[in-house]
Amino acid sequence: MIGVGVYGATGYTGRELVGLLMGHPEVEVRFLTSESAAGKSLRSSWPLAPDITLIPAADAPLDEVDAVFLCLPHTRSAPLAAQALAAGVRVVDLSADLRLDDPAVYEQWYSVPHPAPELLPIPYGLPELGREKLVGAACIANPGCYATTALLGLAPLVRSKLLIPGAPIIVDAKSGVSGAGRTPKLHILFCEVHGDFSPYAIGRAHRHLPEIEQVLAEEGLEPGRLIFSPHLLPTDRGILATIYVQVTDVSTVRGAFEAIYGDEPLVSLLPEGELATLGHVVRTPYAALSLTPVDDTTLIVVSALDNLLKGAASQAVQNFNLMWGLPETSGLVGPHPQSVGQGVSAS
Amino acid sequence: MIGVGVYGATGYTGRELVGLLMGHPEVEVRFLTSESAAGKSLRSSWPLAPDITLIPAADAPLDEVDAVFLCLPHTRSAPLAAQALAAGVRVVDLSADLRLDDPAVYEQWYSVPHPAPELLPIPYGLPELGREKLVGAACIANPGCYATTALLGLAPLVRSKLLIPGAPIIVDAKSGVSGAGRTPKLHILFCEVHGDFSPYAIGRAHRHLPEIEQVLAEEGLEPGRLIFSPHLLPTDRGILATIYVQVTDVSTVRGAFEAIYGDEPLVSLLPEGELATLGHVVRTPYAALSLTPVDDTTLIVVSALDNLLKGAASQAVQNFNLMWGLPETSGLVGPHPQSVGQGVSAS
Amino acid sequence: MIGVGVYGATGYTGRELVGLLMGHPEVEVRFLTSESAAGKSLRSSWPLAPDITLIPAADAPLDEVDAVFLCLPHTRSAPLAAQALAAGVRVVDLSADLRLDDPAVYEQWYSVPHPAPELLPIPYGLPELGREKLVGAACIANPGCYATTALLGLAPLVRSKLLIPGAPIIVDAKSGVSGAGRTPKLHILFCEVHGDFSPYAIGRAHRHLPEIEQVLAEEGLEPGRLIFSPHLLPTDRGILATIYVQVTDVSTVRGAFEAIYGDEPLVSLLPEGELATLGHVVRTPYAALSLTPVDDTTLIVVSALDNLLKGAASQAVQNFNLMWGLPETSGLVGPHPQSVGQGVSAS
Amino acid sequence: MIGVGVYGATGYTGRELVGLLMGHPEVEVRFLTSESAAGKSLRSSWPLAPDITLIPAADAPLDEVDAVFLCLPHTRSAPLAAQALAAGVRVVDLSADLRLDDPAVYEQWYSVPHPAPELLPIPYGLPELGREKLVGAACIANPGCYATTALLGLAPLVRSKLLIPGAPIIVDAKSGVSGAGRTPKLHILFCEVHGDFSPYAIGRAHRHLPEIEQVLAEEGLEPGRLIFSPHLLPTDRGILATIYVQVTDVSTVRGAFEAIYGDEPLVSLLPEGELATLGHVVRTPYAALSLTPVDDTTLIVVSALDNLLKGAASQAVQNFNLMWGLPETSGLVGPHPQSVGQGVSAS
Repeated sequence: MIGVGVYGATGYTGRELVGLLMGHPEVEVRFLTSESAAGKSLRSSWPLAPDITLIPAADAPLDEVDAVFLCLPHTRSAPLAAQALAAGVRVVDLSADLRLDDPAVYEQWYSVPHPAPELLPIPYGLPELGREKLVGAACIANPGCYATTALLGLAPLVRSKLLIPGAPIIVDAKSGVSGAGRTPKLHILFCEVHGDFSPYAIGRAHRHLPEIEQVLAEEGLEPGRLIFSPHLLPTDRGILATIYVQVTDVSTVRGAFEAIYGDEPLVSLLPEGELATLGHVVRTPYAALSLTPVDDTTLIVVSALDNLLKGAASQAVQNFNLMWGLPETSGLVGPHPQSVGQGVSAS
Repeated sequence: MIGVGVYGATGYTGRELVGLLMGHPEVEVRFLTSESAAGKSLRSSWPLAPDITLIPAADAPLDEVDAVFLCLPHTRSAPLAAQALAAGVRVVDLSADLRLDDPAVYEQWYSVPHPAPELLPIPYGLPELGREKLVGAACIANPGCYATTALLGLAPLVRSKLLIPGAPIIVDAKSGVSGAGRTPKLHILFCEVHGDFSPYAIGRAHRHLPEIEQVLAEEGLEPGRLIFSPHLLPTDRGILATIYVQVTDVSTVRGAFEAIYGDEPLVSLLPEGELATLGHVVRTPYAALSLTPVDDTTLIVVSALDNLLKGAASQAVQNFNLMWGLPETSGLVGPHPQSVGQGVSAS
Repeated sequence: MIGVGVYGATGYTGRELVGLLMGHPEVEVRFLTSESAAGKSLRSSWPLAPDITLIPAADAPLDEVDAVFLCLPHTRSAPLAAQALAAGVRVVDLSADLRLDDPAVYEQWYSVPHPAPELLPIPYGLPELGREKLVGAACIANPGCYATTALLGLAPLVRSKLLIPGAPIIVDAKSGVSGAGRTPKLHILFCEVHGDFSPYAIGRAHRHLPEIEQVLAEEGLEPGRLIFSPHLLPTDRGILATIYVQVTDVSTVRGAFEAIYGDEPLVSLLPEGELATLGHVVRTPYAALSLTPVDDTTLIVVSALDNLLKGAASQAVQNFNLMWGLPETSGLVGPHPQSVGQGVSAS
Repeated sequence: MIGVGVYGATGYTGRELVGLLMGHPEVEVRFLTSESAAGKSLRSSWPLAPDITLIPAADAPLDEVDAVFLCLPHTRSAPLAAQALAAGVRVVDLSADLRLDDPAVYEQWYSVPHPAPELLPIPYGLPELGREKLVGAACIANPGCYATTALLGLAPLVRSKLLIPGAPIIVDAKSGVSGAGRTPKLHILFCEVHGDFSPYAIGRAHRHLPEIEQVLAEEGLEPGRLIFSPHLLPTDRGILATIYVQVTDVSTVRGAFEAIYGDEPLVSLLPEGELATLGHVVRTPYAALSLTPVDDTTLIVVSALDNLLKGAASQAVQNFNLMWGLPETSGLVGPHPQSVGQGVSAS
């Protein structure tokens, strides 16, 4: 058994991650941290959760674990990653701290100096776009939820050089409210969200933009072409991005996606005529992708996933599995090959 | 007092329209029709509604009214419009039947021959884009909800010749469920919509596309460039469209919008930095528009309105007012100039 | 015109109240206060609201108004009521401060000494249960939302001495989230409420219990019999209470309710067989009541209203109208007698 | 492996049940039936579901299975149960057909003659109230969702003779919309439910009442005392009942519940001061119970469960496990003892 600790267990992502790790056949959870609920049981945060006492991060016994998951706000995460790595403990970091290779870009977007630039670069943990650098890694930067959604939809096009140079790439993304975290703020109160739907940070203003562009640059895309417009949905979880691109030949697009995702266990490329929806993916570790050709050169890709799972916690477990050489879907997909899909909600 | 009748009073649009007409200072409602609830009180459809007995359309006393509103499915509406006009009764048609000038285009998109081609063309009732043809009209085609949303956001750019020729025009639209009507169907059940978010008829497949293109063609846009992607939101009412365009000079855009909407009482052009949301417009007769320049040539327009009001019933009243030479906002905006906005929910 | 000021204009109740007052034919709003948003426009709190600059309470020009509405937390309200009354300004207090006649009871339930005991008792503003003491009053204590819901359902039974002595009186109440206010707290975040439903302070623990018992004691009920169990509904507004009582003769119950509410413009006693729902009342100034006899002595009363309107803001306007000798529904019901019910959402 | 078939796989309960059975270590699903979707894949009903072709019930190969689950409407279920039993196939019936021992009571409440009275009585499958009759049973009647909720809260009081004779027993129950099934009907449309909350069939009018009373009569309760009031919640799943009873000695109540549920793996008796909520149980196979003493003799029991799981599908699996002598929670609770609670949403 691999002993693990989770920092930040009382947020929405922490909750999902603890649930997944508790059910993981190769994992033993050794500690959970929380600053706001330190000393209390995890049950004080989540009804019927396992009765485990939360400890402050400063008290975490790093010598008792093999790996840690960091579900912490940016700037608080990187120093703990450095500390764990120094102690010989592997790290999956779910914050934004280790995703951007260049600390200057980090400072530009997060308005603070990078808290641990000596760690950079860290392998970016989106397994379907390249898992070789993740196998056996000591530290993995778990991607952002919007970034995963956009990248799964765009990377096959960039890699296959199908995008018409210079044409705009438009990602119109919609997210459930859990993406905004669990710290009480006015704009995420029930009465503010119920019945509303609102864009925010549209254009080239959201912090996931440089993360998406960095990965696509590695795949060969020139920077500056991406338009990324997030919106807040009146639901709790799930992200769906409707992506508009101009391609050189729309007839070759499906092949490009099949080449990359054809054998992927956690990415479902939907058959022609079926559009991806949140209903495909919410409360599952899967991403769903659909391709809609509009005319010879115009393509709409719809990419959907659960922001707390494939957009955070289950992708972190995927990365953890790669890190330790375990089967990549261990702890994510049931032992029986049929047991996939949203119906399996209580097993 | 102008005597009116409403055909189709038990749908979501009919409900709103009856409410507005009951409060209209110049209107007397003389009959309401419903096939499914004929013989019952309006109260059987809507709690605490006025206690008015619904009659079948065939029994409607056209000789007792000056005007009728048709809130009926397409194909059922046009024949009644013809009948009313023949009887000297004016018509505001909220169905799709009279919106497209060319019956061949209607047949192409609705898969049936046009039910009353001799009536076409009918003035298209989007007052902010041209009210001269509506003043005193005998019949007005009330626009579709998606069409109104898209047209308010796009027409100023087309009219001002600000769009870069050939570049795609992308309208990513999201609608509350009431847009799908009140006839029980699986995909609009509560349990299907709750927690979901789904695209449908994306690209160039939705029936409001030819309606939008017809109006924009009159403004000078070549056909075939529009990409229109509707999505179903897990809320009851409201439409928000995020519109992506390439313009020749992003700095002149605000002026073009101000020139058209600066004095409009029911269209609110939001100040820079404020994005339009459903919260601006739901349960009001207003549309809200925001302009977000991304770079020198890329613009994002967000257009929002209530699909049942500015997208249907309150726009119908606007058109009715123009038809009869009444103040255009009569029955829509309170007598006191301050009494605008969503706060006025019970007066 | 009567000049008024509203303290606490940026909360949910304040928003509704400002909307109603802006549309009131006899009222001129002279100032709005907010501590958190002082110096900003009301538009910064509510989209498309009137553009009125908010001022801190300390700067409110009491000499420019005839009356004030206090939409403030308890303990902050009573001192301002005292100040206004001393300045000759009439007061409708929507907080809990002036509802309980006995300051000792206040201290017991609110855990602080009463902030202005010299003001007590103040007339309790539930017009349907006795409006004579409200006509011309200088100060009125506006009832709590749960209290209004329970009292409308119970008072006719107590007044008619129909309750079997000693039998328990059970009020199982369910409220939308806006009843919990607009200050960010964990339990009212969207993701906490969406998909949940939860009881709280059940039995004899909620602060509205002594308020309900005080009023019913005046009607003749011995204290201590009421069981009151609130629950939080996953919706924004509305309260529905299902009330279970034992009566001496279930056949006389309807007469007792008709005697009290038969001529009331804002309380709708539903016909036999129709149950009150939130759909009857949300976004209206009406309460709806239904009576369901179960057997000879068991009765279920369902009482429903909008917690922000008949449970707060519209009842405050009712009280204001009584205070100034205006028609009681002025500013609440349209000029046209038919224009009632939920359909009138935008007029 | 035990071969099973599921009749009615495309309803909400069928979906959950298929999901659970697919993940059950001792089960092999051999066929799924659907009349409306016969010939199509299960994927046509549920996104990303296993790709299994649905067959009409008439084509079901009973000779290939050891047991069947019936997720069918009442009257359609019992004849298929009889057919399966005659073929030597065991049956878990999730319909109402086999729950009532007396066909006359069935006819009284369902307004049709019982479709297979020769089968009655059938063991009632609420394991926590008596599993001995279920072990090895050939046929089990799976309880109703409301009935399970009410019975878990009331049975310990009846069995311990703690209820004061003659005092009313009030069950105020609230259910998510999935309890109303998946057949399109007006009252379960999204726009009808969103923002509403409504009582229905309150008092002694709901079909689960005789089922509850039958079980409680076996425990010693005289019939006729139960008041049962269901309400429709604006959420998709979960039932919460707030139960008001008069007991002889409130101090002994907790002991009575602990005696029955202390060792139950799927019923959680919450500690004092914690109230049961939907958040405790939705998407889990658990019921949660809380006890709130109000005074010496008044008790409030809150009982909550997921109507589709402990109220239907997971309870059916529990019963199936007992039927076959398997561990009762097989297929319901993860292999790792910590892996309980709502957090485990994707494993």
